[in-house]
Amino acid sequence: MDELLLNSNLRLYFSAQFISEYNFIGAEIFAKLRTGGPILREKPTTPFIVLPEEARFAPLVKKSRFALDIGGTLVKLVYSTVCERSIGGEPDVLLNFKKFTGIEACLEFIKENWHDRVSDDVLHCTGGGSFKYAEMMHKSLGVKVKRTDEMRSLIFGCDFLLKNNEDESFTYHHEAVGIERYQYKPIDTDSIYPFLLVNIGTGISVLKVDSQSTFQRVGGSSMGGGAFIGLGHLLTSAQNFDDLLLMAEKGDHRKCDTLVCDIYGGSYENLNLPGDLIAGSFGKCSRIGKHSSESDIAKSLLLMISNNIGQEPGVFIRKRS
Amino acid sequence: MDELLLNSNLRLYFSAQFISEYNFIGAEIFAKLRTGGPILREKPTTPFIVLPEEARFAPLVKKSRFALDIGGTLVKLVYSTVCERSIGGEPDVLLNFKKFTGIEACLEFIKENWHDRVSDDVLHCTGGGSFKYAEMMHKSLGVKVKRTDEMRSLIFGCDFLLKNNEDESFTYHHEAVGIERYQYKPIDTDSIYPFLLVNIGTGISVLKVDSQSTFQRVGGSSMGGGAFIGLGHLLTSAQNFDDLLLMAEKGDHRKCDTLVCDIYGGSYENLNLPGDLIAGSFGKCSRIGKHSSESDIAKSLLLMISNNIGQEPGVFIRKRS
Repeated sequence: MDELLLNSNLRLYFSAQFISEYNFIGAEIFAKLRTGGPILREKPTTPFIVLPEEARFAPLVKKSRFALDIGGTLVKLVYSTVCERSIGGEPDVLLNFKKFTGIEACLEFIKENWHDRVSDDVLHCTGGGSFKYAEMMHKSLGVKVKRTDEMRSLIFGCDFLLKNNEDESFTYHHEAVGIERYQYKPIDTDSIYPFLLVNIGTGISVLKVDSQSTFQRVGGSSMGGGAFIGLGHLLTSAQNFDDLLLMAEKGDHRKCDTLVCDIYGGSYENLNLPGDLIAGSFGKCSRIGKHSSESDIAKSLLLMISNNIGQEPGVFIRKRS
Repeated sequence: MDELLLNSNLRLYFSAQFISEYNFIGAEIFAKLRTGGPILREKPTTPFIVLPEEARFAPLVKKSRFALDIGGTLVKLVYSTVCERSIGGEPDVLLNFKKFTGIEACLEFIKENWHDRVSDDVLHCTGGGSFKYAEMMHKSLGVKVKRTDEMRSLIFGCDFLLKNNEDESFTYHHEAVGIERYQYKPIDTDSIYPFLLVNIGTGISVLKVDSQSTFQRVGGSSMGGGAFIGLGHLLTSAQNFDDLLLMAEKGDHRKCDTLVCDIYGGSYENLNLPGDLIAGSFGKCSRIGKHSSESDIAKSLLLMISNNIGQEPGVFIRKRS
């Protein structure tokens, strides 16, 4: 994730890394609540980006904002904080990202961290949980809860980033190494639309987006993050998404998957299928079965699901071209 | 499988069922090898079809034929036998189907059952294993081994069945019950092509077939029978494909899968997604995890893989229409 933002205006920091890179010494918290001045905080322990100094972000210096996306698997919180610069100047406005596996823990966190909230404040929410938990959130936090349609918010956000963030989009080159894999290219703001938006949540939605306000769902599947975490939980000892990814990094999928060369002894020329192509995910597990290593299984699962996610939009793109 | 052939000219029998239905008393095996007469055998213990009385099948009364498809997961054998009719008349020619998980067991079976084989006989083979095991098969059986391209054979076979077997194709109605689900309709032989052929093996290939000899692979995925059996083996105590299907029949996928109503409390109107649609396969397993029942897991796995198989061709069909 960090790698992906190297060429971006909006840089993502994980706090430990930020502290070592910038020799940051924890600033004291001194609340200027009710005086109208900024509430300076320590750098948060969650990943964050430092917002550019632009007029549209200035109100965030005076007033915190919190917003939630409550999906089928995770609750995602984004909120603003203000932080004193280590080397003088105006304070930085940070946009912080935190995820929870349940709404209760999330509300506790918001209560503890949204100090300047008053009853007129609005907690903006998207996702299915914004219907289910609206009353609970209002009672717990004492602020207004406003639902916004998930897909419209998503498209609005994409539009904002593509238009405002230089080099937001990149071409991926699998054969290259490290950062070379991501070939950034500034996008012409006049030629953003139409695009296909593949929304990876618990499941997958593929949207054809014709403008900021016109879109239709053209496809989707039940195999997204929910299947990755759910199957990962059943198949391995990993406790969460990050554990599972770390596990997969060490694995060799060729021990679980049947490759074209396992069936044909090489490539299958008549259909132009190379020998190292995965013919059948987990195909070898019907024999080696429960003796497969956890990391090989995690890698095979990651490839099965991520390849599958890439496939449906690929068909639509071929259709268009 | 049997249900699907009820309206068909070619009826599939599982032997136990055949024996009870037709009150069949095992005919004595008396080999007429070298006399040119038919080699009468007992009804085999494998599933079979009785071939119609047609001139093109007559040579099979005189001479057995054996053919193999050696895939990445299973070895499939089809062979002819001749069987005395229980109620007089000409003997029946049976086409028998048997599957093996390894080539060795298959070759043993062929040796024991292909009595009239001579060195000029040809064992026709398709599949990746026809490359890997050609020499082994020749040495073991003492017959010639001839490879045929898998996809060409498949298309030839489809063409043959669609043209010769009345009501070979049907429309599936999920909401109906039992046999009513399959609405058979004879196919006009002039309008067979073009069609999409979804070949479900270890993995999936989607072929656009324009004629008996012209086709191209337009898609495919690594999630087919190999993934079903491999993951099924890792996740449950089922020992094989049939066990896994029986297990799935008793399961309730809603205990493993996250439905749209689990996220939204009902349907998601903005995207026209009904409440009982699977939003994320195995989405609930990240929480209930290893306490899920085996049959619920098997059902969820079956739906994940079969829905996924249906999806890609669906996109191509929408593309065409």
